[in-house]
Amino acid sequence: MKKVKIGIVGLGRLGIKHAENIAFKVPNAELTAVCSTVEEEVHNAQKSWGIKYGYTNYKDMLENKELDAIFIASPSGLHCEQIEQALDAGYHVFSEKPLGVTVEECKRAEKAVERNADKIFMLGFMRRFDPSYRYAKEKIDEGAIGKPIMFRGYSVDPESCIEGSIRFAAISGGQFIDMAIHDIDLARWFLNSEAKSIFAVGGCYAYPQFAEHHDGDTVAALMQFENDTMAFLYAGKLAQHGYNVETEIVGTKGTIRIAAVPQKNLVEVIDTNGVRKECSQNFLERFEESFVIELQEFVNCILENRKPEITVYDGTKSTVIAYAATEAFRENKLVRL
Amino acid sequence: MKKVKIGIVGLGRLGIKHAENIAFKVPNAELTAVCSTVEEEVHNAQKSWGIKYGYTNYKDMLENKELDAIFIASPSGLHCEQIEQALDAGYHVFSEKPLGVTVEECKRAEKAVERNADKIFMLGFMRRFDPSYRYAKEKIDEGAIGKPIMFRGYSVDPESCIEGSIRFAAISGGQFIDMAIHDIDLARWFLNSEAKSIFAVGGCYAYPQFAEHHDGDTVAALMQFENDTMAFLYAGKLAQHGYNVETEIVGTKGTIRIAAVPQKNLVEVIDTNGVRKECSQNFLERFEESFVIELQEFVNCILENRKPEITVYDGTKSTVIAYAATEAFRENKLVRL
Amino acid sequence: MKKVKIGIVGLGRLGIKHAENIAFKVPNAELTAVCSTVEEEVHNAQKSWGIKYGYTNYKDMLENKELDAIFIASPSGLHCEQIEQALDAGYHVFSEKPLGVTVEECKRAEKAVERNADKIFMLGFMRRFDPSYRYAKEKIDEGAIGKPIMFRGYSVDPESCIEGSIRFAAISGGQFIDMAIHDIDLARWFLNSEAKSIFAVGGCYAYPQFAEHHDGDTVAALMQFENDTMAFLYAGKLAQHGYNVETEIVGTKGTIRIAAVPQKNLVEVIDTNGVRKECSQNFLERFEESFVIELQEFVNCILENRKPEITVYDGTKSTVIAYAATEAFRENKLVRL
Amino acid sequence: MKKVKIGIVGLGRLGIKHAENIAFKVPNAELTAVCSTVEEEVHNAQKSWGIKYGYTNYKDMLENKELDAIFIASPSGLHCEQIEQALDAGYHVFSEKPLGVTVEECKRAEKAVERNADKIFMLGFMRRFDPSYRYAKEKIDEGAIGKPIMFRGYSVDPESCIEGSIRFAAISGGQFIDMAIHDIDLARWFLNSEAKSIFAVGGCYAYPQFAEHHDGDTVAALMQFENDTMAFLYAGKLAQHGYNVETEIVGTKGTIRIAAVPQKNLVEVIDTNGVRKECSQNFLERFEESFVIELQEFVNCILENRKPEITVYDGTKSTVIAYAATEAFRENKLVRL
Repeated sequence: MKKVKIGIVGLGRLGIKHAENIAFKVPNAELTAVCSTVEEEVHNAQKSWGIKYGYTNYKDMLENKELDAIFIASPSGLHCEQIEQALDAGYHVFSEKPLGVTVEECKRAEKAVERNADKIFMLGFMRRFDPSYRYAKEKIDEGAIGKPIMFRGYSVDPESCIEGSIRFAAISGGQFIDMAIHDIDLARWFLNSEAKSIFAVGGCYAYPQFAEHHDGDTVAALMQFENDTMAFLYAGKLAQHGYNVETEIVGTKGTIRIAAVPQKNLVEVIDTNGVRKECSQNFLERFEESFVIELQEFVNCILENRKPEITVYDGTKSTVIAYAATEAFRENKLVRL
Repeated sequence: MKKVKIGIVGLGRLGIKHAENIAFKVPNAELTAVCSTVEEEVHNAQKSWGIKYGYTNYKDMLENKELDAIFIASPSGLHCEQIEQALDAGYHVFSEKPLGVTVEECKRAEKAVERNADKIFMLGFMRRFDPSYRYAKEKIDEGAIGKPIMFRGYSVDPESCIEGSIRFAAISGGQFIDMAIHDIDLARWFLNSEAKSIFAVGGCYAYPQFAEHHDGDTVAALMQFENDTMAFLYAGKLAQHGYNVETEIVGTKGTIRIAAVPQKNLVEVIDTNGVRKECSQNFLERFEESFVIELQEFVNCILENRKPEITVYDGTKSTVIAYAATEAFRENKLVRL
Repeated sequence: MKKVKIGIVGLGRLGIKHAENIAFKVPNAELTAVCSTVEEEVHNAQKSWGIKYGYTNYKDMLENKELDAIFIASPSGLHCEQIEQALDAGYHVFSEKPLGVTVEECKRAEKAVERNADKIFMLGFMRRFDPSYRYAKEKIDEGAIGKPIMFRGYSVDPESCIEGSIRFAAISGGQFIDMAIHDIDLARWFLNSEAKSIFAVGGCYAYPQFAEHHDGDTVAALMQFENDTMAFLYAGKLAQHGYNVETEIVGTKGTIRIAAVPQKNLVEVIDTNGVRKECSQNFLERFEESFVIELQEFVNCILENRKPEITVYDGTKSTVIAYAATEAFRENKLVRL
Repeated sequence: MKKVKIGIVGLGRLGIKHAENIAFKVPNAELTAVCSTVEEEVHNAQKSWGIKYGYTNYKDMLENKELDAIFIASPSGLHCEQIEQALDAGYHVFSEKPLGVTVEECKRAEKAVERNADKIFMLGFMRRFDPSYRYAKEKIDEGAIGKPIMFRGYSVDPESCIEGSIRFAAISGGQFIDMAIHDIDLARWFLNSEAKSIFAVGGCYAYPQFAEHHDGDTVAALMQFENDTMAFLYAGKLAQHGYNVETEIVGTKGTIRIAAVPQKNLVEVIDTNGVRKECSQNFLERFEESFVIELQEFVNCILENRKPEITVYDGTKSTVIAYAATEAFRENKLVRL
């Protein structure tokens, strides 16, 4: 069995999870190199898992011709530049979302993908690989709910992580870029269209700290799409019960909901609180399986030399919409695209 | 509109509720007389609702020829005698469950019903009038689950009422007579057959006080019916979440569950406990509507001169089964009927 | 017991239900008169229930000095005029929603209420009396979800009624007036504020007939309130599963949902379709109890000489918002109030 | 990283899944040899996955000294003999459930385990490794439901597989051995005790073919345990909705349910059937993850030289109970252990 040799850059909370998945969860992937500006992270990963190469400098890793592909899990501000460098150096590239932090950057990444058309590029909108989302998409494509009318997406982080959220607020880009970008991608995927008008509201309902960065702790947007379908997005940081990612697609013949109860597992507890389900506590718990499946798809695309469904343009388009929503929220106005 | 004039005996917790239903909830019923050995109860009911007649002696009420019907909500040990007296005095009779506390008594009540064949007699198995149970029965009769195989019935009182339960233990007859009698009636109704073999177990898991009365705080029975269907009954006093009456009927083509979550209303609370439904807290809350509907049915039977579906024999048969289950539990053996 | 003598005008689908409730479901109410321009409706109601007075002319009924109160269940376009006439004739008045079909009308009704300050006036926003909504409101007032942030309300009629919906489209005022007016009232009630900015979208996704009346078969609005909370409303005619009224209030400390599954009863069916709950099929089924409770409250207000919580201003304010949403939808713009 | 080299015997439906898990899903396991009496199965597995050794004779595989462990997924009747042979040949052994098909066999397996005390032996009660069951166990061990009182376990195969079930009936040992053995193990695990009295009933409600083998298509048992807790088991072949494994543990302070709705995923479908969840269709779908986790635990036990929680005695004890339940069912009597 041919194995795809992968070097990963970024070994933070999500990066280390991706590294572990590459190393152990996808049979035909091999974690050949790890890279982080934090030397200790490189050292630890190499030692724990016996990884052959370690780098603190990304460009050094790009010179390792033993590698087939680069997996980018670095801070969002570095994505586009690292994508460009890796593609131009001849590697297949997987990048975590978001594609970039400005639309201009995204356009540069598009060009890099276009001029390296023989390389596989894939973007980490992992929800599309979650078994529940995939099942929903298949049912909808089969006509189970008729023609989609409305998409509703909630993405709310647990309040238990609020300290980290506040620290991150300065560079997050705001709730629409940080949290709602996945829902924007899903809305485009399910509605099969692009947003044309956006109104957004929100505010700091519990944590005024977000206002310093022209952000809210909770925001919402209503979008009209080019095919006249609609999307309601709700994103924030105040979920008490856990990591609340809930999605609904209403169609002319039915409705599908994904994780209307964002339950942790199949356990139901009955006690003085009533009958209850406990919830997933973070995205790593909720989407553990999706991260593995998207990685497997990336590896399969390389081995089978076919393009992934998620393209660089999905990254740009989602970013454009997220920025428009941010503008609508900040200026309290209707933005037309 | 002809009104049925009713005299009620027993003004305890459930009796007073029945009295209120007669007075206000069924248009063609009139609460004409109230009777209780507790003079204050009689006085209060008369005064609050302007009831014409009040009695502290049951026999006195039976001499009031203005009445059409007697509603019996007195202690279980008095039911059969009072049924007999009321029927023989020429009244239609509604009696709360259980029919009686011994099988012999029940047989005497049967005879009284038989010799007063022109009178309406109805027994208070109110669950059969609950909209959810009725809906389930209709679906099953229409074949929605094929042929019934197994009935599962839970009837568990909230632990918050444990003090009253313990006080009542001496005269309750035990969990099978007190709590499971409704499930026994439902099992007979849904399975359309009679129990032939019963094994029962249980014990005092939290409150040893029940053992003094040869009872448990929780008991269970597995029954085989004459048509070879089966019933599992579970009854007790330890529900933390509320009044837990849950029923399941498994058939060859599907399953129906009633109140698998014994929810209080349509509210779902999402908080640090997860996603939860709060539960009904007692039988008056859970079956409020059923008590009105069964009363309406009793009144309609009188006005339309037709016999109710629930007969005196349902009372006897349920009692026979409940006693057999009690014997199986107390002697830890298999009882065949 | 003093009985409030009520004359009802309007004996259509909902009117006849109200008439029945007055006649039989509220002990201290008496249905003394019925009025409809359809003589047969008057005749039938009088005959079936033995109602003393019948009218085909509303003004004639207003001259019956035996009456205490007038219950208005006529077409929406008549509400305000009939309210004014009844109040000025010296009666207490209950009017079905909406208060009126123009804001000007509503203002006239306000004045009539103000100049008859000794009379009880109540508007039929019955959801506020639904036990689940009341329970939710009490929990929220007790702080169970912290400070409300976002209200989400769905009101979607079953597609099975689409023919009637299409016929009614010419005079309904559109989905926001017809369907969402209840959610607008609820949003104001739960968020304790008034809308200040509204964006609305929608369209004819299955039935182009609504477009002739500048309406959609489905519409949605995002509203910002004066206290910076937000509301998302979704209304339409395409629900496959039944009458879909679902409400969510997200707060800083938790979330409450009412009828997230708009279930018919406590029955769960398990068959080849999976595990499922069947749904309420229309508003009379879903809100049967609410109609009785609101009526009881109206009668109690009269008997106890106190003002209801729901005022004529609630009617005007909801109408103003509904019109603004309609304008936002029709002109595809952001409307500021 | 040290890898445990495993040879598997049995490449049927479940065997091939185990083989795939060994090959790809557990990082420190290596599928070194495959063995089946069906030469084509051996050939296919070797070819697809590049497996080094292939055997059609089990004893030949036991002579391969490169192997560390033997994984037994052969027909139940061979388990004990193959366990004995593999242990005595010096290998660690994992065996699928049931341990054996007679109690005598199980006792022989016990002796083999005892005389090879330095070897790891583990039995495939995979449910104990399912994340939901583990979560439930941890909560119960922490006291979340007080002291367990009653265990309820349903294990019902989908009717869609009835043809295979009927073919298998002759050698399955009956529903208690075939289906309920997992619930028996779970009951022992959760109740922390052994069954002492068993009554069982059941029958052929839809498929008389099972009667030829003294079995039913559906059976149920009520068991009393030594610590006076109780278990109700229900097993069969007639589930319309999918693979119905549902478990409930009622305690003195609360209740825990696992898979009360045996849902396939987090998708909820709303259509003319109401609001519904589709269900898992077979044990491979429901317990996919558990099979991987139990394998990982077996490998970890070998690498860390520690004994698994599940012992050979769990196999014998479950078998003893399953046989007693079978006897109770076949002879329609109460069996005491």
